[in-house]
Amino acid sequence: MKRTERIGAIIRILSENPNKLYPLSYFCDLFKSAKSSISEDIQVAKQILKCIDNGLIETTAGPSGGVKLVPYISDKDAMDLLNQICEKLKDSNRILGSGFLYTSDIMFDSNITKRTGEIFARKFMDKNADYVVTIETKGIPVALMTAHMLNLPLVVVRRESKISEGSTVSINYISGSSDRIQKMSLSKRAVTPGTKAIIIDDFMRAGGSVKGIIEMLSEFEIEIVGIGVVIASIEPQKKKISDYFPLIFLDSVDENNRKIDVTPNSLLFCKNNL
Amino acid sequence: MKRTERIGAIIRILSENPNKLYPLSYFCDLFKSAKSSISEDIQVAKQILKCIDNGLIETTAGPSGGVKLVPYISDKDAMDLLNQICEKLKDSNRILGSGFLYTSDIMFDSNITKRTGEIFARKFMDKNADYVVTIETKGIPVALMTAHMLNLPLVVVRRESKISEGSTVSINYISGSSDRIQKMSLSKRAVTPGTKAIIIDDFMRAGGSVKGIIEMLSEFEIEIVGIGVVIASIEPQKKKISDYFPLIFLDSVDENNRKIDVTPNSLLFCKNNL
Repeated sequence: MKRTERIGAIIRILSENPNKLYPLSYFCDLFKSAKSSISEDIQVAKQILKCIDNGLIETTAGPSGGVKLVPYISDKDAMDLLNQICEKLKDSNRILGSGFLYTSDIMFDSNITKRTGEIFARKFMDKNADYVVTIETKGIPVALMTAHMLNLPLVVVRRESKISEGSTVSINYISGSSDRIQKMSLSKRAVTPGTKAIIIDDFMRAGGSVKGIIEMLSEFEIEIVGIGVVIASIEPQKKKISDYFPLIFLDSVDENNRKIDVTPNSLLFCKNNL
Repeated sequence: MKRTERIGAIIRILSENPNKLYPLSYFCDLFKSAKSSISEDIQVAKQILKCIDNGLIETTAGPSGGVKLVPYISDKDAMDLLNQICEKLKDSNRILGSGFLYTSDIMFDSNITKRTGEIFARKFMDKNADYVVTIETKGIPVALMTAHMLNLPLVVVRRESKISEGSTVSINYISGSSDRIQKMSLSKRAVTPGTKAIIIDDFMRAGGSVKGIIEMLSEFEIEIVGIGVVIASIEPQKKKISDYFPLIFLDSVDENNRKIDVTPNSLLFCKNNL
């Protein structure tokens, strides 16, 4: 293979597996090329992604070193995505009554959740997390995509303990908005005590579910190193948790005038924003 | 940008959005290049992916034409993946009793579900489906990845009707294995009558859930054009549905000898296999 072909192939392979470290020898064997050639190819590939502002190619030296593609959504692409989601959310046909909005089409959209996952991955890439954790059901796609971008396992907390989960730990918690007692459970096989987790969910009102997940994970001595939610309701202003990273704020749903007020988090990647 | 750089950038951009059609003018504008140059770049990109057997770049002519990357997992990669999943499944620590196996780590693994989704996408790519449909919870990741690879919306049937789903259609069905009556419900907003769907699920014993989904979708006059399951239990041999595409067969779970008997579907892409 010629240089142009090797570079294209390297970009394809790295793109398929974000944050997966490939030893240089992998590409040396694949292309039957010298390490020096592959190193030069990787430098060009790095420049290409930089030029189109679409991901970072990182190399590390040493025996355990190699090359990986770190997804890195640009500020512009992130804001474009959030504006696009907000436009969708403003459709008055989403109003369901009691302040609820229909969001399943957005939360189950693989392209939206993939790019949303890239925002969370960029935000939490340096947290050295061992897992991405969510609670069923609507947060699963964005949490899965975040896990994929960070090359981490996804752990899904269940509402009910299922026989297929083996032995579980369950907790009861107060749902922040309804003040009802709800249950969540986690398989003991799903996590290892003493590790670190990022929590990702689709929607947060008062933060009861996320607080429940935190309590649940504390039973396993798991440290929370980041919390991301796609949509955070402004009301109630007093949340049950403090440090969280919302992408979109839901201000109000005016059922009479059929108006939905949503705004993107404009401080997305500011250093002081969480 | 030079040719090498343009080709690398085209491969990166197409890889990010499988099955999304980009008009040639998109790349002409991005690189400020003539259509003839971009056409030549795409030809080279096509050859590169062919050479590493990792996806197809397809071009269509005419005003609504363009270029897209069709994920196309090779026979070898597909069988390697299934063998790898089978090895994981054979771990006797997965035995939960009553014939159940712990599979959540596999079904929530973003890399495994992505590549499994590529197998389903290859199988069903010519079916002209409008949706990928699954039922919560453990089938969501593989169904999402299948939807992503086919660039289709994902629809998730819920076990209970939620207020956030709006008005729903619910059915009761008999779970094939337990003979218990169970419920499933689907938001009326989630689908359009008269369309086509692929059903994807993580596990099938007697096929009760899938049969339930089929009945549910028939309420919306939706035609089923493909059914894929990751693991199909050999027992009971008499299933409630007939045409389905399983990736792995679960033969038996011998609790006394701690032995799990699983085999990959070796006829994966044979023409006569479904």
